Amino acid sequence: MMVKSPLQIARESYVPKMPKSLMGNVKVVEGKTTESVADQDDIKKLFPNTYGMPVITFEPGTDATSYPAIKVGVILSGGQAPGGHNVISGLFDGLQRCNPNNVLYGFLGGPSGLVDNEYIELTTELVKEYRNTGGFDIIGSGRTKLEEEAQFEKVIENCKALGVNALVIIGGDDSNTNACVLAEYFASKKSGIQVIGVPKTIDGDLKNEVVETSFGFDTACKTYSELIGNIQRDANSAKKYYHFIRLMGRSASHIALECALETQPNITIISEEVEKKGMTLDELVTDIANVVARRAEKGYNFGTVLIPEGVVEFIPAMKTLISELNDVLAKFESEVAVLESNRDKRDFVASKISAQSAEVFRSLPNNIANQLMLDRDPHGNVQVSMIETEKLLIDMVKSKLKKMKKDGLFSGKFAGQGHFFGYEGRCATPSNFDADYCYSLGVTASLLIAEGKTGYMASVKNLTAPAEQWIPGGAPITMMMNMEKRHGNMKPVIQKALVDLDGKPFKMLADNRESWAMTTSFVYPGPIQYFGPSEVCDLTTHTLKLEQGK
Amino acid sequence: MMVKSPLQIARESYVPKMPKSLMGNVKVVEGKTTESVADQDDIKKLFPNTYGMPVITFEPGTDATSYPAIKVGVILSGGQAPGGHNVISGLFDGLQRCNPNNVLYGFLGGPSGLVDNEYIELTTELVKEYRNTGGFDIIGSGRTKLEEEAQFEKVIENCKALGVNALVIIGGDDSNTNACVLAEYFASKKSGIQVIGVPKTIDGDLKNEVVETSFGFDTACKTYSELIGNIQRDANSAKKYYHFIRLMGRSASHIALECALETQPNITIISEEVEKKGMTLDELVTDIANVVARRAEKGYNFGTVLIPEGVVEFIPAMKTLISELNDVLAKFESEVAVLESNRDKRDFVASKISAQSAEVFRSLPNNIANQLMLDRDPHGNVQVSMIETEKLLIDMVKSKLKKMKKDGLFSGKFAGQGHFFGYEGRCATPSNFDADYCYSLGVTASLLIAEGKTGYMASVKNLTAPAEQWIPGGAPITMMMNMEKRHGNMKPVIQKALVDLDGKPFKMLADNRESWAMTTSFVYPGPIQYFGPSEVCDLTTHTLKLEQGK
Repeated sequence: MMVKSPLQIARESYVPKMPKSLMGNVKVVEGKTTESVADQDDIKKLFPNTYGMPVITFEPGTDATSYPAIKVGVILSGGQAPGGHNVISGLFDGLQRCNPNNVLYGFLGGPSGLVDNEYIELTTELVKEYRNTGGFDIIGSGRTKLEEEAQFEKVIENCKALGVNALVIIGGDDSNTNACVLAEYFASKKSGIQVIGVPKTIDGDLKNEVVETSFGFDTACKTYSELIGNIQRDANSAKKYYHFIRLMGRSASHIALECALETQPNITIISEEVEKKGMTLDELVTDIANVVARRAEKGYNFGTVLIPEGVVEFIPAMKTLISELNDVLAKFESEVAVLESNRDKRDFVASKISAQSAEVFRSLPNNIANQLMLDRDPHGNVQVSMIETEKLLIDMVKSKLKKMKKDGLFSGKFAGQGHFFGYEGRCATPSNFDADYCYSLGVTASLLIAEGKTGYMASVKNLTAPAEQWIPGGAPITMMMNMEKRHGNMKPVIQKALVDLDGKPFKMLADNRESWAMTTSFVYPGPIQYFGPSEVCDLTTHTLKLEQGK
Repeated sequence: MMVKSPLQIARESYVPKMPKSLMGNVKVVEGKTTESVADQDDIKKLFPNTYGMPVITFEPGTDATSYPAIKVGVILSGGQAPGGHNVISGLFDGLQRCNPNNVLYGFLGGPSGLVDNEYIELTTELVKEYRNTGGFDIIGSGRTKLEEEAQFEKVIENCKALGVNALVIIGGDDSNTNACVLAEYFASKKSGIQVIGVPKTIDGDLKNEVVETSFGFDTACKTYSELIGNIQRDANSAKKYYHFIRLMGRSASHIALECALETQPNITIISEEVEKKGMTLDELVTDIANVVARRAEKGYNFGTVLIPEGVVEFIPAMKTLISELNDVLAKFESEVAVLESNRDKRDFVASKISAQSAEVFRSLPNNIANQLMLDRDPHGNVQVSMIETEKLLIDMVKSKLKKMKKDGLFSGKFAGQGHFFGYEGRCATPSNFDADYCYSLGVTASLLIAEGKTGYMASVKNLTAPAEQWIPGGAPITMMMNMEKRHGNMKPVIQKALVDLDGKPFKMLADNRESWAMTTSFVYPGPIQYFGPSEVCDLTTHTLKLEQGK
């Protein structure tokens, strides 16, 4: 029996706010047929059964529709995001409203549950325990990829045996790409099993003209911003540390950008900008050191720096170095292994890579160079996500400032503290926004199933308006796809949304960068509130507001 | 101009709940005279003017008292704790109520502000901006110690020049010891300057019969528990990681204990218990590894471990090793410096320390051994607070499990993730409890001043009852003192409260330890709420409830 916290008990009775059009009878309105975002011919060829379908919206209808009873399976795929339990409760309630005899199964531990046929029935009593809570623990999650035809066949077999007519896959861009591949396969085999995707990821990079934001981004960013704000208030009270805070976001910097807009730190690194400018590590370090030196002139020897975890891979020279290290370390594995000291190993490795990469390699602090050399994943590759970029930057900024001090360019003090926030936000109790949005996504998914759709992603739009004005519907996943190289082969995948350097959220940061760097303009958002005034509890992200011109 | 978050704006209008006896006319009730907790003769001799005074309480009175106008100075001393701004706003409002002509100065940047005469006047407008907010940024904090007579004289000089009649020192045990020394000095010099202390520290180790809890402990523990709960929900969703979470608390484990009671993790280390049992590092590691192995048998390859940051110093063998390293590295500094590789350095150092310490030293992972050897503070000492104990334990548990696997004693998987939470909680927006408690402490401090007291600490008791039943008053600081060795000399200091291994909070942990280890009984407290139902917003710590038999 779960011991519940007072907040958890109080949140059980929260009723998610819903779009008007999901509250009564619903009418399906079809839009125009769609095209993929790029590589239309390739995508069309690969998805003959699920390409070109129209975007649809659910609008208030006059007539009640009666739907036959069905059985539906749901999985949670990939990393946790706040609100997953509300997608499931919305899906459950929506299915019950379509037909009280509908049954919902939860496959356990992510996609592998589908193949291994591990599942539970999601009952009223069970779902009740998880409404408005964080986490994916109701059925667990996992990262197994369904890619082989043998796996697809096993899924069909398991679904048929259970009588399951439709699957809902709650996941990020990869999982939704997979959902679409499954939908296409099932359709081509006339299996009669529909597949619906739901856009999840705290990273915020599953976003396009039909998906305004992925769920979980709001809550995760608010949780990280709470912590950043607390640290900033500490920095401004003690006035003696620079806090270097690494945030999730390996492929895109949406989290760092949103947190920056919420907390106004002194420095925010955006990976997409680093790449566009073709910056070197030394240039990045110099930029930070210059801000530290200029703040010191004003008497400020403290501050905050936000770092997206993926930034190292966006620095062209580092990307090259990592790729060369992968090759060299594979080729000379035994030669490196016999060398006794890390110093000898570093010297050996440096002698085998390009002169340019060797220079970058030698500029790194020893512990980071060792980490790049020694911490390899099972495929022998450098584990970029293990690099403690915040410590790397603290070390390098410190060295740079030492040199600047010698040259009379810096007269202040510098002491760094590193932080990394990831797990802290992925399973937070969903904000009112995510609780509402996810519940609506779940209900929408149930309607897409009832209406016989497959290869669709649930979509709820107009999200900066009050929930009753939200617009639920669905969009064919194929319209979000293009062709990209994966492990050497061109594959159809959902196009990731990177930070748009011409977009309003980034412009807001860029316009304020100088002022936030030179002053102490910290904002302290505090923890997510669920019960207070609407302007405290119901606002969504700055990113979404700015993107929608609000 | 500060850009305020929506929560900050909404909290501005919060009116702290107050004890009934502080709301109208107040009567002073004197208790019996007091003795110090130990070493009465020594303390009495050192504090002839401030020893043996009675505990006093403020009770509802019938007559209004008129107080002459005074000027008061306040400082924030040491590490930040949530609620400091409310102590100041309570003090400000209390002084205004005593006499509208009273003036409050804030000395800047901690105790050094008193000596350097850096101050600002705290006005209605300024104080308004900081009510119910976290941080110490209204006047900043600092760690300068006032120990020299020359400093004391400078403080008298500055206070006289400003016309300041009393100082309020908001700080931990050390700062309050200092407050008492100052009070005694001022009294002996007949300077006419009173000194009042206010008990602050998130660590919870400033606690005794008159101080039920120090302020900030409630909010900090709730903030850490929010994060621990989120991580636990992630662990229980992904089911693949052990999260090792290091928490503040170098001298005492109150934070780890309170967080454990709030979140029910699988393993909680309590430094005081480790010391009492005389555990070795290997025994500690073995205990953790055994829980991991037994959970694996039940199919659980995930969990959480809470670690108080000071634990390494409570392991007798590690304490000895660190002390020997301090000696050896000082003695052989140049010999170590010329050795090229860390391996050679480690070998050299190991040859110079006792056999027993050498064995412990060799058992440490290389990076930790290097850190002990190379990261020294300006005095040449090992920097214990820099040791990433969570990583040390992950590494050592991993090695231990590898060996156990070879011996057939472990058949599961183990992957560790380390976290450290400190700065995240020290400046959080104060909980309703801390906002109320601190405000009452501030008002109480104003009354102690108005009543002519010096060498007293503000005290508010009966804290698990509703605020209106709280009992405000003051206690002579000398009654909390004993003699302890500091830098080789016996000094009068406030006795620190360690975790009482016979007390109810620890017993609650001990009684549930086996069950929490073997099951997944995680509790997810979620973020601090300010506006919701009272059972969500107004509860204080489990520690306090249990200590008071609730």
